[in-house]
Amino acid sequence: MISAKTMAEPLFNRLALLGIGLIGSSIARVARERGDLARTIVANARTQATLDRVMELGIADECEIDPARAVQGADCVIFCAPVGAYAALAEAIGPHLAPGAIVSDVGSTKQSVIRDIGPHLPEGVHFVPAHPMAGTEFSGPDAGFAGLFKGRWCLLTPVPGTDQDAISRMRTFWERCGAMVSVMDAAHHDRVVAIVSHLPHLIAFTICGTADDLADETRQEVLQFAASGFRDFTRIAASDPTMWRDVFLNNREALLEMLARFTEDAQAMARAVRWGDAAYIEDKVLRGRKIRQALIDINQA
Amino acid sequence: MISAKTMAEPLFNRLALLGIGLIGSSIARVARERGDLARTIVANARTQATLDRVMELGIADECEIDPARAVQGADCVIFCAPVGAYAALAEAIGPHLAPGAIVSDVGSTKQSVIRDIGPHLPEGVHFVPAHPMAGTEFSGPDAGFAGLFKGRWCLLTPVPGTDQDAISRMRTFWERCGAMVSVMDAAHHDRVVAIVSHLPHLIAFTICGTADDLADETRQEVLQFAASGFRDFTRIAASDPTMWRDVFLNNREALLEMLARFTEDAQAMARAVRWGDAAYIEDKVLRGRKIRQALIDINQA
Ligand SMILES: NC(=O)c1ccc[n+]([C@@H]2O[C@H](COP(=O)([O-])OP(=O)(O)OC[C@H]3O[C@@H](n4cnc5c(N)ncnc54)[C@H](OP(=O)(O)O)[C@@H]3O)[C@@H](O)[C@H]2O)c1
Ligand SMILES: NC(=O)c1ccc[n+]([C@@H]2O[C@H](COP(=O)([O-])OP(=O)(O)OC[C@H]3O[C@@H](n4cnc5c(N)ncnc54)[C@H](OP(=O)(O)O)[C@@H]3O)[C@@H](O)[C@H]2O)c1
Repeated sequence: MISAKTMAEPLFNRLALLGIGLIGSSIARVARERGDLARTIVANARTQATLDRVMELGIADECEIDPARAVQGADCVIFCAPVGAYAALAEAIGPHLAPGAIVSDVGSTKQSVIRDIGPHLPEGVHFVPAHPMAGTEFSGPDAGFAGLFKGRWCLLTPVPGTDQDAISRMRTFWERCGAMVSVMDAAHHDRVVAIVSHLPHLIAFTICGTADDLADETRQEVLQFAASGFRDFTRIAASDPTMWRDVFLNNREALLEMLARFTEDAQAMARAVRWGDAAYIEDKVLRGRKIRQALIDINQA
Repeated sequence: MISAKTMAEPLFNRLALLGIGLIGSSIARVARERGDLARTIVANARTQATLDRVMELGIADECEIDPARAVQGADCVIFCAPVGAYAALAEAIGPHLAPGAIVSDVGSTKQSVIRDIGPHLPEGVHFVPAHPMAGTEFSGPDAGFAGLFKGRWCLLTPVPGTDQDAISRMRTFWERCGAMVSVMDAAHHDRVVAIVSHLPHLIAFTICGTADDLADETRQEVLQFAASGFRDFTRIAASDPTMWRDVFLNNREALLEMLARFTEDAQAMARAVRWGDAAYIEDKVLRGRKIRQALIDINQA
């Protein structure tokens, strides 16, 4: 897209991506394609194999296995690794950040990220936590694509007092990635994603295990006759174990609260089934329908 | 498809469909299209409005609001109404069934169907319960389409001693509809569908309610930021309240057993999250992945 390249100045001079899997490589791809996000893209990963692959794919200008070196001279650093790796990464890069740099991330949890990254950032560095609500069940640098964020939300959760200019640059960054941006409190973010994303994933992982534990002959047929309900759950459940382990452990309180609420509601449904309370069951199904309709109405379905 | 029409004799002379919504109208459509399922298609529904619509759509040869008249002279009768309506329908049609007729159904539960229909059938009428494992979240005669059963399983659950010729005709019927057919015991069927279909639906309905009960400001954002997990659940949850009420109430034992197993597993997961048992969580996510892979391998994903 030459037009974009000539239209606007790059937002950043040097963009360092710490982790370059599904999300990081999608950012790198859209940055490459548009040209107005950063002049130079530096990729960092845990393994050299990933960086070699990134060079083959040609989606970054430089690769650097040492995170401290990767962030040197960068005016924007985005954490794109599993959230459980953030604390150690932040500690490693803290002393090497350029003055005035913006540090951001893409983690699925936000209070933990503020807790883990915040303390390691020197004075004069601006921290704008972010969560692009876009993804697939695939991972690694091959899984990314430039259109991943298009039309999806990206939530920014800066702590009070954060530099307004840094926030508005990250807003522009994500808008140029094709996302719609909303700013909210980190604790509120964590509750919302606990119900819309983390709990559904926990349920999907769990039901796969429940099915897998059934007696042998039934298990075979669970696979053979997988109907739409179960099949859809397995798609959700096909995600990366490290990422999800980290998400669950780092959004513990909100996730456990939502699971407890859900479990109560499931028990009430079980009771209605046991006692033949037809009206209760119909009412719950109708509610599901209404919520689906509301999603369709606001174009999120 | 003229070729099909000239290729094989119609399997039945007069096919009566008791209920003509998503499933019934899909059968009618494929029967129309192929010509080798039945010479005459008779549609019955609860309301005249539905039958008027069926005539407009031109998917049946005759419409008859009285089920007793609808089955007269039919050599095949298929129940396509919600399973909760089967007992009364069976009682109404029993005395009017033609000798030697085959009675079948498409209900999502099978032990209850045998319990509700069986006793009303006269000597010499053959009963072959069936469950086509295909559907969408839509209902009514407009929702059907001829390709619905293509490549999907149809499970037959005849009781021991059922006429083999009747079973093999129903097998041919569903194969001509495009389905793959498997014969199994009704109790086994009910357990398998409890985990692959009924429990996932119960969970999806429940989580929509859980989300809807959240405090106002969070609820708004649940809709606004619906991530893939929740969005997928709402699609499953958009189904017909009457059908699902009937399914839950008529597969009570198996559904409650699967829900109890699932709840135990979810509690174990909650415990792992609370105590930071990373290995346990990773293991469960990996299991989800493996099951997904197994589904992909056998082409059910
Ligand atoms: N996937 C989604 O649906 C989704 C959606 C929104 C947000 N997120 C968030 O985005 C982040 C990345 O997810 P992803 O799906 O892009 O993951 P991914 O495809 O698995 O990629 C993870 C990247 O992080 C690197 N990494 C892993 N552990 C590391 C460590 N200890 N130190 C440094 N780098 C490390 C990996 O390097 P190697 O390849 O060398 O191991 C890899 O490049 C996570 O925080 C996740 O919560 C994900
Ligand atoms: N939907 C699925 O995904 C799916 C998949 C596999 C099997 N099934 C099974 O297929 C059957 C039909 O489901 P569907 O989705 O086709 O339902 P649907 O679209 O809601 O259609 C139901 C039909 O049954 C008629 N009906 C309703 N109550 C009746 C009663 N008391 N007496 C006589 N007729 C009645 C309706 O007539 P009116 O229009 O006049 O009310 C309508 O024609 C159910 O037993 C269900 O368990 C469904």
